[in-house]
Amino acid sequence: MADTLPLPDFKAVEAAAARLQGHAVVTPLLESPLANRKLGGRLFIKAEALQRTGSFKFRGAYNALSQLDAETRRRGVVAFSSGNHAQGVAHAAELLGIPATIVMPADAPALKVANTRAYGAEVVLYDRYKEDREAVSAKIAGERGLHVIPPYDDPRVMAGQGTAALEAARQAAAIGVHFDAFAVNCSGGGLAAGSALALEAVSPETQVYTAEPAGFEDMSRSLAAGERVSNEPGKYSICDALLAATPGVLTFAVNKRLLAGGLVATDDEVRRAMAFAFQEYKLVVEPGGAVALACVLNGQLPVTGRVVCVLASGGNVDPETFITALKSAT
Amino acid sequence: MADTLPLPDFKAVEAAAARLQGHAVVTPLLESPLANRKLGGRLFIKAEALQRTGSFKFRGAYNALSQLDAETRRRGVVAFSSGNHAQGVAHAAELLGIPATIVMPADAPALKVANTRAYGAEVVLYDRYKEDREAVSAKIAGERGLHVIPPYDDPRVMAGQGTAALEAARQAAAIGVHFDAFAVNCSGGGLAAGSALALEAVSPETQVYTAEPAGFEDMSRSLAAGERVSNEPGKYSICDALLAATPGVLTFAVNKRLLAGGLVATDDEVRRAMAFAFQEYKLVVEPGGAVALACVLNGQLPVTGRVVCVLASGGNVDPETFITALKSAT
Repeated sequence: MADTLPLPDFKAVEAAAARLQGHAVVTPLLESPLANRKLGGRLFIKAEALQRTGSFKFRGAYNALSQLDAETRRRGVVAFSSGNHAQGVAHAAELLGIPATIVMPADAPALKVANTRAYGAEVVLYDRYKEDREAVSAKIAGERGLHVIPPYDDPRVMAGQGTAALEAARQAAAIGVHFDAFAVNCSGGGLAAGSALALEAVSPETQVYTAEPAGFEDMSRSLAAGERVSNEPGKYSICDALLAATPGVLTFAVNKRLLAGGLVATDDEVRRAMAFAFQEYKLVVEPGGAVALACVLNGQLPVTGRVVCVLASGGNVDPETFITALKSAT
Repeated sequence: MADTLPLPDFKAVEAAAARLQGHAVVTPLLESPLANRKLGGRLFIKAEALQRTGSFKFRGAYNALSQLDAETRRRGVVAFSSGNHAQGVAHAAELLGIPATIVMPADAPALKVANTRAYGAEVVLYDRYKEDREAVSAKIAGERGLHVIPPYDDPRVMAGQGTAALEAARQAAAIGVHFDAFAVNCSGGGLAAGSALALEAVSPETQVYTAEPAGFEDMSRSLAAGERVSNEPGKYSICDALLAATPGVLTFAVNKRLLAGGLVATDDEVRRAMAFAFQEYKLVVEPGGAVALACVLNGQLPVTGRVVCVLASGGNVDPETFITALKSAT
């Protein structure tokens, strides 16, 4: 089946990187000598919390939107998202002069909703427990003639997200380092798929892992099962960005072939990772951005004697959530 | 008098930049479209909190230490510091294989003391209210034959600190921007002096300002008076990194000639600036690292219709202090 899917390849990631040049931030690859000493190896943090809109999602959104034709641009786009894809699409649309409508859950973090509006998008709220966001988006798209920008199951979006890993691998090569392992936080799997395509080409010896919050480890279980499986309903996690129920069709086709496996962390481990990023890297990381780091600290992804990179995918966190994380670690 | 002082010049800053190449982090120049909209102009943050050891102080320390001869290196160095210069010297010394002794106030933030020890330095604590740190350092230096690395009144240290502004101006030029104003947090004035020397050469139209916490605005008042004046004793500020009583002799000789003036912010304004950096830039900034940003937000350094850069000089802050700052702003 995968043979017939419109999957992106490394050339698509490279083309995305060219489109993003001068528009996306070249985020730093952070390292802490003190953290390295504690971990017994070298840990790098690809700081995508410092990306435009506070998360890597700007990359995929801009890559998708910048390829639309003039008529589609004029009519506008619609996206559904818990918050980071929302901001990414809203800001990319604003930069390109495209009207954007964003469908968000009514209980999304207040900061993410406010920022999406501040980027000029129209926000339509829905009830995450009663309504299906894809159906809400499809209805709006149909009524208004809008083009849908999916959060992960889209070749343009996957290729765009992969530019973060491509950039990280090149930054590492520039200082004479290559990654033994690379871990990304995972919801629908777009970042993981794009990253795996990028690293397969430029750093084929690097093992690529997903990191998911406990209760939402559908990618991890799907990789183990060799087929897409869903999370049990009714679970809760503070990782609001990572609550997709099932891997995407396109993303799983790539991830099944390329990933080394899936890692999992509890919410408490995620809070400690947020506090660790605060103390050691001076970086604000949201819960869903800290799961890969949590999987280093909980021992699932050992750094001892190795070079490991985790992608801190976003920093859009309300002060209250951040305060709770700092308190839980002290 | 200034004619006879061993003042650094732009060539010294350029030489420092060459020495730091590959050792200091090229810290990012951050920008937030949403913050820019609120401020009506373009505000850049030079994120020195992401520098090695969590502050710009690594730059001056490494520049000074890397110029020592073999015999001096063998005997070792001593430095006095409230915390960031301590960590900068300790880590630079560790990288260069030089023994380091650091004299720190007994009430310095626990994190700064712990990290200084973790970099391998011997820490000697003193009572900030009863003892003179320069006298304590001089005594240790004499007894043990150690070379003193002053925190600011030293041409090597001043030149090293100036590399942050040089780097920022070049990063701006690379994206077609130049700064109308550049503000740095100020204690003894070494960062200000180095920055002013760098910008005089590569961006002469940029106005350079110091930013100090209220009660410790000795540089501001000295610039206005045309001579070095001291703070009144008995004041308190949360900006533990910026409590020097008087501008340095060398730093003031440079600053008097080159600075556009001195700005001041209250502790409450500093806390709000820390929360603003958290929300808009996803950056952890310590109190003393947020004063220049506070002077933007309190209106002393207007951004409207202009391009302004503030240097976020450090991120070494205890969780409790950071939590208080986040709470004060919500």
